[in-house]
Amino acid sequence: MSAYHPLTEQEAIELAQSLSNFFPEGAKLQSREIGDGNLNLVFHISDPATGKSLIMKQALPYAKVVGESWPLTLDRARIESEALIIEGKLAPGLVPQVYHYDADLALTIMEDLSDHVIMRRGLIECGRYPKFANDISEFLANTLFFTSDLGMNQQQKKLQVQNFINPELCKITEDLIFDDPYTVSENNNFEDAIADEAEALRADTALHLEVALLRQKFLTNAQALLHGDLHTGSIFITPESTKVIDPEFAYYGPMGFDIGAVLANLLLNYAGQEYWSTEDRAREEYRAYLLDTIQAIWTQFDQKFRALWDEHGVDRMANETEDFQNFYMQSLLQDSIGYAGCKMVRRIVGLAHVADIDKIPDPEKREKAQRLALAIGKALLKWNRKAASIDEVLEIAKKGV
Amino acid sequence: MSAYHPLTEQEAIELAQSLSNFFPEGAKLQSREIGDGNLNLVFHISDPATGKSLIMKQALPYAKVVGESWPLTLDRARIESEALIIEGKLAPGLVPQVYHYDADLALTIMEDLSDHVIMRRGLIECGRYPKFANDISEFLANTLFFTSDLGMNQQQKKLQVQNFINPELCKITEDLIFDDPYTVSENNNFEDAIADEAEALRADTALHLEVALLRQKFLTNAQALLHGDLHTGSIFITPESTKVIDPEFAYYGPMGFDIGAVLANLLLNYAGQEYWSTEDRAREEYRAYLLDTIQAIWTQFDQKFRALWDEHGVDRMANETEDFQNFYMQSLLQDSIGYAGCKMVRRIVGLAHVADIDKIPDPEKREKAQRLALAIGKALLKWNRKAASIDEVLEIAKKGV
Repeated sequence: MSAYHPLTEQEAIELAQSLSNFFPEGAKLQSREIGDGNLNLVFHISDPATGKSLIMKQALPYAKVVGESWPLTLDRARIESEALIIEGKLAPGLVPQVYHYDADLALTIMEDLSDHVIMRRGLIECGRYPKFANDISEFLANTLFFTSDLGMNQQQKKLQVQNFINPELCKITEDLIFDDPYTVSENNNFEDAIADEAEALRADTALHLEVALLRQKFLTNAQALLHGDLHTGSIFITPESTKVIDPEFAYYGPMGFDIGAVLANLLLNYAGQEYWSTEDRAREEYRAYLLDTIQAIWTQFDQKFRALWDEHGVDRMANETEDFQNFYMQSLLQDSIGYAGCKMVRRIVGLAHVADIDKIPDPEKREKAQRLALAIGKALLKWNRKAASIDEVLEIAKKGV
Repeated sequence: MSAYHPLTEQEAIELAQSLSNFFPEGAKLQSREIGDGNLNLVFHISDPATGKSLIMKQALPYAKVVGESWPLTLDRARIESEALIIEGKLAPGLVPQVYHYDADLALTIMEDLSDHVIMRRGLIECGRYPKFANDISEFLANTLFFTSDLGMNQQQKKLQVQNFINPELCKITEDLIFDDPYTVSENNNFEDAIADEAEALRADTALHLEVALLRQKFLTNAQALLHGDLHTGSIFITPESTKVIDPEFAYYGPMGFDIGAVLANLLLNYAGQEYWSTEDRAREEYRAYLLDTIQAIWTQFDQKFRALWDEHGVDRMANETEDFQNFYMQSLLQDSIGYAGCKMVRRIVGLAHVADIDKIPDPEKREKAQRLALAIGKALLKWNRKAASIDEVLEIAKKGV
């Protein structure tokens, strides 16, 4: 019989207290449940006397999204915990530290990052994060390179693939990102004002071919251990620090899916900024900052990934074959652009939206932001297999509707 | 403690006798060990009184190839047995029936196919197999389609990937096919007469790019459950029957690797026939028969795979997206041609050769056959990403050196 049950706050405190060498013995701990209750319980446990605190995240055996509830494997807690530990080794300081994992309770105890903000909120408030491009490009280059056949023992990598088979969470992505937005589905969710856009998506056969190709890659291409859900709601940030959280969708997939997620969420904010900011000049400056950030992320990722390859590449054919690295990096850019497009489209017409756009109060401005995001997303999708430079993404974004 | 130990003939007989409902009780069984002792023990066990017989194949914990010996996992017996059972369900009658699998002994008891001949020998003797193109195209279409994301539940497929992680046997392929022939390696094995060809392979950077790309796909692309070693030595044949054996290299990889293996081994025989046959007209006729067979295999595979897709496709995006099927089939053809090229090259300069060419007694003729096989293999490699029709393979083969 499994010992699993959702913890009460009192049980959470007792478990935290039993963690050796974290809180002083006899500390009077406080607990706040800060999760949204849709997927996980999240306890913030602190000792007011010393100011020490930690986060306890427990998976719930179901998912609730927009009112729907369906059963969901607790194995995702193991995957999240193991992925965090791997990412922490490969990209030190860029993920929360894991203190403890309890398999029976599907529970991870980790570093408290309450001094950070969720990046999505930070971007909506026009925050600037001068370290972000450097940090996220390092996170992407290190985690993707060193879990791939380029950077780790290729037989060990196969065992990693085996360990990160993640059918239930992959299925969510396969449905919500690579299928529903392009057909009539109960999972779709869009405002009446853009019903014409949703209909156009269903009829656009050239677009469907690109999505179908990217879907096949997502299903079959075990290139590297992905975070699997790397949007700006999975990033905690300050001007000095970046922490990637919540890798419960981790699995072996195409690298461009993670890179594209970051680009897409910056572009979604870009599309929303058009209508958020009240002052024209500030708005234009912030939008330029977002595009500069996108360019810096790809450019630095490309440099760092190539440098890792040159220094640590394990595959003789990949290392010594002229032009192979250039070919590989261009494929990564193309995939990243394609996946960015998929992710923008689904955030406008699919089940789960983003606050960057949905919280724009004025309905007309919101509609325009939605149309802009869709225009950029579709253009990225139609361009992806032809892409040769990140500059082309910036041009597409600047061109607008 | 494991019960594993290599069986004696007497133990093999006792095990066969204990198999319920196969041999009559008290039957006086005879055993012959017919394996080559390099990888497996193979016992042929028969009851002269009834004429009934079976094959007992036991994995040895090492591999011996050309004098070298290295340890090799016994798990390959499980993989072989499970792959045979899956293939038997998906392509009935085209693999030996599995009667029993013993995990502790790494042993599979299966149908005796002694009335068939190994296809490589059959081809060397200019045998004609009018059912072969039909049978092998059916084997390929059924096993590849129904184990892929196109034809089976996509979450179940991920568990199949997990079950068929096969690091040690994949490593053999990765080294011997996708690395050694293109560098200086102790694993290479070629005659002095073609040392210039081996040197040219090492210097041909355009060729290396193609091989590196195909190697990456082999490492990462979990498209379908492959046989993994589908050369003509893994096929038992008669004019009326085709049986695919020995899937111990089975794993989830790119479909073109299996298809290409069949094409390559027919082309290796084609290259050898140039110099085997004594009578010109018979030789030309047989070579034409081999090319007709290649064309028929691809054409029928293409038809059957598309028909399965149209009737049983499970992926809405793949099914309903205009042009996606054409795109997919063309990619399969291109991969098949690329992998066929890799397999031809490695059989001439790599560790393991083929009798179709190596047993040509006249050294000058043998050398010419080797050069012809290399010329065809290299041409296929350089053409693979541009290919649009199987006819192009025939043209390359006819063109010769």
